[in-house]
Amino acid sequence: NSYFKIAVLPGDGIGPEVVGESIKVLDAVAEVFHCQFQFSYGLMGAEAIFKTGDPLPDETLKICKDSDAVLFGAIGDPVFDNNPEAKVRPEQGLLKLRKELGLYANIRPLKTYPSLIEKSPLKREIIEGTDIQIFRELVSGIYFGEKFTDPDGKYAYDVCRYSTEDITPIAHMAFKEAEKRKKKLTLIDKANVLDTSRLWRKTCQKIALQYPDVKLDYMFVDNAAMQLVLNPKQFDVILTENMFGDIISDEASVIGGSIGLLPSASVGEENALFEPIHGSYPQAKGKGIANPVASILSTAMMLDYLELPEAADKLRRAVEHAVENGYVTVDLNAEQHYSTGEVGSFIADYI
Amino acid sequence: NSYFKIAVLPGDGIGPEVVGESIKVLDAVAEVFHCQFQFSYGLMGAEAIFKTGDPLPDETLKICKDSDAVLFGAIGDPVFDNNPEAKVRPEQGLLKLRKELGLYANIRPLKTYPSLIEKSPLKREIIEGTDIQIFRELVSGIYFGEKFTDPDGKYAYDVCRYSTEDITPIAHMAFKEAEKRKKKLTLIDKANVLDTSRLWRKTCQKIALQYPDVKLDYMFVDNAAMQLVLNPKQFDVILTENMFGDIISDEASVIGGSIGLLPSASVGEENALFEPIHGSYPQAKGKGIANPVASILSTAMMLDYLELPEAADKLRRAVEHAVENGYVTVDLNAEQHYSTGEVGSFIADYI
Ligand SMILES: CC(C)[C@H](C(=O)O)[C@@H](O)C(=O)O
Ligand SMILES: CC(C)[C@H](C(=O)O)[C@@H](O)C(=O)O
Repeated sequence: NSYFKIAVLPGDGIGPEVVGESIKVLDAVAEVFHCQFQFSYGLMGAEAIFKTGDPLPDETLKICKDSDAVLFGAIGDPVFDNNPEAKVRPEQGLLKLRKELGLYANIRPLKTYPSLIEKSPLKREIIEGTDIQIFRELVSGIYFGEKFTDPDGKYAYDVCRYSTEDITPIAHMAFKEAEKRKKKLTLIDKANVLDTSRLWRKTCQKIALQYPDVKLDYMFVDNAAMQLVLNPKQFDVILTENMFGDIISDEASVIGGSIGLLPSASVGEENALFEPIHGSYPQAKGKGIANPVASILSTAMMLDYLELPEAADKLRRAVEHAVENGYVTVDLNAEQHYSTGEVGSFIADYI
Repeated sequence: NSYFKIAVLPGDGIGPEVVGESIKVLDAVAEVFHCQFQFSYGLMGAEAIFKTGDPLPDETLKICKDSDAVLFGAIGDPVFDNNPEAKVRPEQGLLKLRKELGLYANIRPLKTYPSLIEKSPLKREIIEGTDIQIFRELVSGIYFGEKFTDPDGKYAYDVCRYSTEDITPIAHMAFKEAEKRKKKLTLIDKANVLDTSRLWRKTCQKIALQYPDVKLDYMFVDNAAMQLVLNPKQFDVILTENMFGDIISDEASVIGGSIGLLPSASVGEENALFEPIHGSYPQAKGKGIANPVASILSTAMMLDYLELPEAADKLRRAVEHAVENGYVTVDLNAEQHYSTGEVGSFIADYI
């Protein structure tokens, strides 16, 4: 297959700018690797609320469902964050999309770039050689359980619910990845307090029997939050539930000093969505200073997913070349830097 | 008042050793400051399960309720952690005690020690001068909401519930502390997803009107997990719910390089419990290598609570003297170090 339908959701803040560079790069890939990408654009997030009142218009959902993969920018706007009364919020669009497309696994590879180690808040000897792959469950747990606020505003609750069916597919995915790597899988939970965490442990213990080569260990989430800073190299593949994954994966993203470079994939049985892990960064919007690399590396993950591994590798090499040779945005080098578009063009040209 | 009834719960692992040093130090305080401490010992945690089958025997609860303050060591044992089927767990004892005594606020002061900055995994310029006070809600939220595992083991849930009454007292406590400090309070939540977080925001917004000098700001927990590593100095007083507080405060505890030194207080209307924030560290049990300073500094927080501020200050100065002059355990200096008991005696003698 060499013809792919890509849904493009630029989203909020710097989303449109960085996604624009991904498109530029995909155009280069199409030329060199003789394939074709057909892009269909959709609204999502704050932009979609301003224009249609709905953070995920039906039209957007339809475009995504019809696509082979979704390329997404970023979501969120301070207008909504500071108003706890807002009934409609940008994030609802993303959450609904994850659920509707069944994107149950959020995957984040974390590596250190030699040339960026000095930018990390952590010491070189702590982080050098860190190579972690995080699997975060994405369509269940407290994000999607029943929610309630009593009409008088006196109390509220959120239910965290998991079934063995919610846990099983992502657990298999994580075990399979661990088999390909150092054969070590760490389940992060709070099994000394939560029933849902104990269900995760039991389910994973059973599944582990099918992967005798992989060593499964457990870590409480509070301890994991410490260990990621104290000694990130002890981790290989991490598996965790939705809320803990949100916290732990963002914490882990800063250790390499390269948050502007980190991609993610959200994968289901039928579809997948690719997005940079940085947020919408509203302060930088429209200034041409946003780092497009995280979005471009998310595009590389998309090329892998579309079974174009050579194109994906080429793209990753192009990025490494850019980063190691100083073709970077201001976040990575305050003295000598290039604009969002210049970095994107450099990478596209290299391809 | 110069006569105090102290409930002592040594607990598991290194708990008994470090609490023993606190008692030694309190004996010195009693002599110098002309007061009297009557110690009543109680079982709690794994020790209590092994001896009585109950992680919090009624006898222990009674001792605590009759006391002016509770001194606690540590809880937890690997025997239970690795068995998701265990019906009775050490942690249940601690959780029940918090609830029964109404200890709604867990308070953790975090400071860097000049002589220990090099031990931090973070760079000096990132952490130097960090001074944070964390207020974690301790008797509600997902820890104490309804829990359920279906008998067939197919699904489970945990309910996170908050009422305005759960939030109000700890919010006032945190605002009052912020007034005394840099007048900056950061509420950490996930208000873009959770109803309970939005209730926290609304409740705190209202309470803020009574503290016009304090600037209240909000941060999503995933972002907070990043910011604590990127730039901990931006925080002054932090307020957060139970589960997020568990994760965030443990993460924050490693930034100073001095986790063996960090104390905590868990405070309610009628009673208070003081414990080191490090855990039971079972590998070190009985070896005389555990660092007693966190327990001793928790004792200083207890002296403040008992309105013996001079004794508390003296104790803190004694600890600083010990740390800055190298009277430390092996965790702080691998070359030249002293045993748990030697460090405790040095501090007691200084008083
Ligand atoms: C925007 C928000 C709802 C989202 C989440 O919490 O899942 C984001 O933080 C993420 O991690 O993708
Ligand atoms: C032992 C455990 C139940 C406890 C908690 O999660 O509250 C501990 O981690 C703590 O922070 O005091």
